[in-house]
Amino acid sequence: MSIYSETNAQFILGLNNLSAILDKAANWAKENGKTEESLLNAALAEDMYPLVRQVQITTDMAKRGVARLAGVDAPVMEDNETTIAQLQARIAATVEFMKGITDAQLDGDDERPIVVMAREHELRFTARSYVYKFATPNFYFHFTTAYDILRQAGVPLGKRDFVGPIF
Amino acid sequence: MSIYSETNAQFILGLNNLSAILDKAANWAKENGKTEESLLNAALAEDMYPLVRQVQITTDMAKRGVARLAGVDAPVMEDNETTIAQLQARIAATVEFMKGITDAQLDGDDERPIVVMAREHELRFTARSYVYKFATPNFYFHFTTAYDILRQAGVPLGKRDFVGPIF
Repeated sequence: MSIYSETNAQFILGLNNLSAILDKAANWAKENGKTEESLLNAALAEDMYPLVRQVQITTDMAKRGVARLAGVDAPVMEDNETTIAQLQARIAATVEFMKGITDAQLDGDDERPIVVMAREHELRFTARSYVYKFATPNFYFHFTTAYDILRQAGVPLGKRDFVGPIF
Repeated sequence: MSIYSETNAQFILGLNNLSAILDKAANWAKENGKTEESLLNAALAEDMYPLVRQVQITTDMAKRGVARLAGVDAPVMEDNETTIAQLQARIAATVEFMKGITDAQLDGDDERPIVVMAREHELRFTARSYVYKFATPNFYFHFTTAYDILRQAGVPLGKRDFVGPIF
C-alpha cells in the first residue's frame, strides 16, 4: 500500500469521524432547542469561514486530494447545503467517490507533478510533496476547525470523536 | 524516503510554521497592548485546553511520534512555559531532537508494533497505522486548535501561515 492509498484511507476515516461528529451536533441541537442553522453559520472569528463552509472544504480537500493523485476529476458539488442532513449526504458522496479510487490509480512515481491552482497562483508539487505539504495539512486544518466550532458552540465532543475508532 | 521519515519532515515543517505563527502573535500582543499571558491562557471553550497547552501537546505529539517510530525515548519537558519565548525554546528543542533522528532509525517494517498508553488504556498499533490513525491526526488537531485560538483572539493570520512555505 503506497502513501497515496494510505492517504485516501486516512481521509475516508476522517470523513467518517466528521460525519459521526455532525450526527452528535444534530442531536445536541434538537435536545437543546438550537437550530441547525445557527450551528452551520457559527464561526470562530468574523473573518473565518463558518461551520458549513469548513465541512464543505474538508470534503473538497479530501476528494480533490485523491483525485489529483489518481489523475482523475473530482465530482463537483454545489456548495448549497443548509442542513446537517445535506452535509451528511455530501460527505457520503465524497466517501463513495474516494472508495471508488483504486490503489492502482493512486500508486505511481513519487516525483510525478501535481499542479494546484490557488486563485491566480500555480502551486507545483510532486505527488509526495503534495501529500505532505498540501493535502494532509489542509484536510486536517478544516476538519479540526469544524470540530473546534462545534466544541465552542457547546456540543459535547472529545478528541476520541475526532480521532475515531483507532483500535 | 519512508512514510516515517516523511512524517518526521512533515512535523518539523509544521513546528516551524507554528513557531512563525507564535512570533506573529507575540508581535501582535505587543503592538496591541495585550499580555502574552492572556493569549497563552485563551481557550475556545471552558473545558478545552488553552493555547499554552495546545502548543505543548503539539510538540509532544511530534517528538513522541518520531521517537516511537524510531524506538528511542523522547526528551521529557516540564510543561512550565509562561511566555511565548519559552514556547519557542520548547519548539526549537523539539525540532533539534527530531532532526537528530536518522532515516535509518525511522525506516523499518510497517507492521512493527507501536504501543501507546492513553491513561489506563493500551493502544496497540503497527508503525503504519500509528502514523495514519494516531500521530498525524493528533499532531494537526492540536496545531490547528492553537492557530484557531490565536485567530479568534484577533491575531492576523491566514492559512498560508499554517501551511507555511510550500513552494
